[in-house]
Amino acid sequence: MSEEIQYTDINKSFEAALERSRKIEEDLTKNPKKYRVLTGDRPTGLLHIGHYFGSLQNRVRLANMGVPTMILIADYQVLTDHDAFDKISQNTKQLVIDYLAAGINPEKQDVIIYPHSYVPECNQLMIPFLTLVSNAELSRNPTVKEEIESAGLKNVNAGMYTYPVHQACDILFCKGNVVPVGKDQLPHLEMTRTIASRFNKKFCTDMGKEPVFPEPQALLSKTPMILGLDGSQKMSKSRGNAVMLSATEDETAKLIKKAKTDQDRNITYDPVNRPEVANLLMLISLCTGEEPAAIAARIGDGGGGMLKATLTEALNEKLRPLREERARLEKDPEYIRKVLLDGAAKAREIGIKTLEEVRSCMNMLI
Amino acid sequence: MSEEIQYTDINKSFEAALERSRKIEEDLTKNPKKYRVLTGDRPTGLLHIGHYFGSLQNRVRLANMGVPTMILIADYQVLTDHDAFDKISQNTKQLVIDYLAAGINPEKQDVIIYPHSYVPECNQLMIPFLTLVSNAELSRNPTVKEEIESAGLKNVNAGMYTYPVHQACDILFCKGNVVPVGKDQLPHLEMTRTIASRFNKKFCTDMGKEPVFPEPQALLSKTPMILGLDGSQKMSKSRGNAVMLSATEDETAKLIKKAKTDQDRNITYDPVNRPEVANLLMLISLCTGEEPAAIAARIGDGGGGMLKATLTEALNEKLRPLREERARLEKDPEYIRKVLLDGAAKAREIGIKTLEEVRSCMNMLI
Repeated sequence: MSEEIQYTDINKSFEAALERSRKIEEDLTKNPKKYRVLTGDRPTGLLHIGHYFGSLQNRVRLANMGVPTMILIADYQVLTDHDAFDKISQNTKQLVIDYLAAGINPEKQDVIIYPHSYVPECNQLMIPFLTLVSNAELSRNPTVKEEIESAGLKNVNAGMYTYPVHQACDILFCKGNVVPVGKDQLPHLEMTRTIASRFNKKFCTDMGKEPVFPEPQALLSKTPMILGLDGSQKMSKSRGNAVMLSATEDETAKLIKKAKTDQDRNITYDPVNRPEVANLLMLISLCTGEEPAAIAARIGDGGGGMLKATLTEALNEKLRPLREERARLEKDPEYIRKVLLDGAAKAREIGIKTLEEVRSCMNMLI
Repeated sequence: MSEEIQYTDINKSFEAALERSRKIEEDLTKNPKKYRVLTGDRPTGLLHIGHYFGSLQNRVRLANMGVPTMILIADYQVLTDHDAFDKISQNTKQLVIDYLAAGINPEKQDVIIYPHSYVPECNQLMIPFLTLVSNAELSRNPTVKEEIESAGLKNVNAGMYTYPVHQACDILFCKGNVVPVGKDQLPHLEMTRTIASRFNKKFCTDMGKEPVFPEPQALLSKTPMILGLDGSQKMSKSRGNAVMLSATEDETAKLIKKAKTDQDRNITYDPVNRPEVANLLMLISLCTGEEPAAIAARIGDGGGGMLKATLTEALNEKLRPLREERARLEKDPEYIRKVLLDGAAKAREIGIKTLEEVRSCMNMLI
């Protein structure tokens, strides 16, 4: 550990990360097989339209472009900041239903959905990686600091504290080199890159060997942040401000009817001064492809009522095929189970190869 | 984490641990199959007579009593406080040769020697266990504090910091319930017991299920601490004050000739005032079974010269069969390899069962 990791100011490094992300995006189309995307969710609940427009659609796009895609359902990691664990298995299966209904196709050889707890190879790197990071570096990670604050954790458990190291294991055990993330996740990814680079230097290149790990790059989302229907910063099921992918059309209509707008009857697209209205316009735009300003102009003096009616119709229309597929998949639990177990088997195969290379570099081959 | 772990004063709790250890020792003879011993070494070098009399002989005794015995060669953990990694594989194989030559019989179904890096199930529990321990508890662990000081580490890596959690994984993945340790390791074992008990409460008994993990007990060594031949506190290869099991009879004689004694020609057994002489007498006693005081009386005015000659003869005599077996095993690397790979396969089988139970309690079954 000759050089300590320096967490650069997120805003300063953001522009650089965005530029790298653009270049990768360009190359992905040309050389999809050069990459392996690592993405996933913790099974803490059902997915909502924030997830759908923010990340799920993008995963579908990447997988369909032929980019090898690993989707990790991080069940163990639920415990880092959640006490409840009664619905983990149920949530895991519902996540798979959401993925498949949205268009992820696990029948493709390179598209792998797997639950963390079924892939021991995932955690095998914890110990070598922990030795490559100093305690001080873990303490200073800004994302961990923020997450601890936002979860209101008084007694920080060591699982939360070492989170960036688990994440490095999750990404590197399968040599993921592209990770779709939001801006707030950049420091975690910086830690993964640091660990990969230190491992490669110490155990590989300094010994005249080829590096084992890629230094993964962020693929930054192009979708603007989607607010909750109550206008709060984050759409989430627990705040009751989210439309779940699994909601019925009626439930969707009811939720949108309660959405927050503002006093001005004339609908305009002004994200700075009218964030709630802009958010609803953006959602319509994400469904129809029309520009938010054009939608606003069309509604004009129709007011919040017409805005909400437009969104309800657009969203239900957009989600109809997904919801039909969802209902069909709900009736086939054996297939969902098979997707997860086949995924775990494929993920293990990849992990086993990586671990063999790791043992070789670390001079542990028997 | 309702109750924080309190590291009790080692000396106060020592008597209690010793009493529990005595009871287990008694029961082991009667019910060997009720127990599973977890023990092992890090492959940092060859074993010496300190290891032999201090722990290896005891392992052989337990295994031969029919107690299921897991011997972990903790290769990954070499990196927590060692920078060198060029000889890990070589040291692993030499350890196996030492074990086998000393009388460990891996042909027995219940005697399992395995390298950590070949058993991914070993680390799988890292993440759930890390969530059961607070960061503050890790910081306060007295053994980690001491090891950090004694290794002179300035920049503590997170592998060292989380060491007690790795150890809990090592012990609990196979449901080890007896761990032969020295006094200094008691706080680590306290952490393992705490983790087992918290897991059992949160995920099992509070949910009306049977506990998954045993709360492992220490089996305290009955052999007094063996000093280095230079009279220093610890026998170790790097200090040049150790007789390796693999040494020749001539090398043994030369090393003992240089051993530190004192000015008094008359040999007496007085561990407090004459620790170096007492140490050599103790070593002779460990070889021959005769009482140290009786050996001292026999040597009398023979002085340091006769003391050393007596030890040389006794030790070379004692180790002769072991060294012959060692030489034979050195010529059979394929067999050593087979022992390790078979051991890893058996350890994995045990680990897979435990992990299935863990997933079941944590509601992660697919």
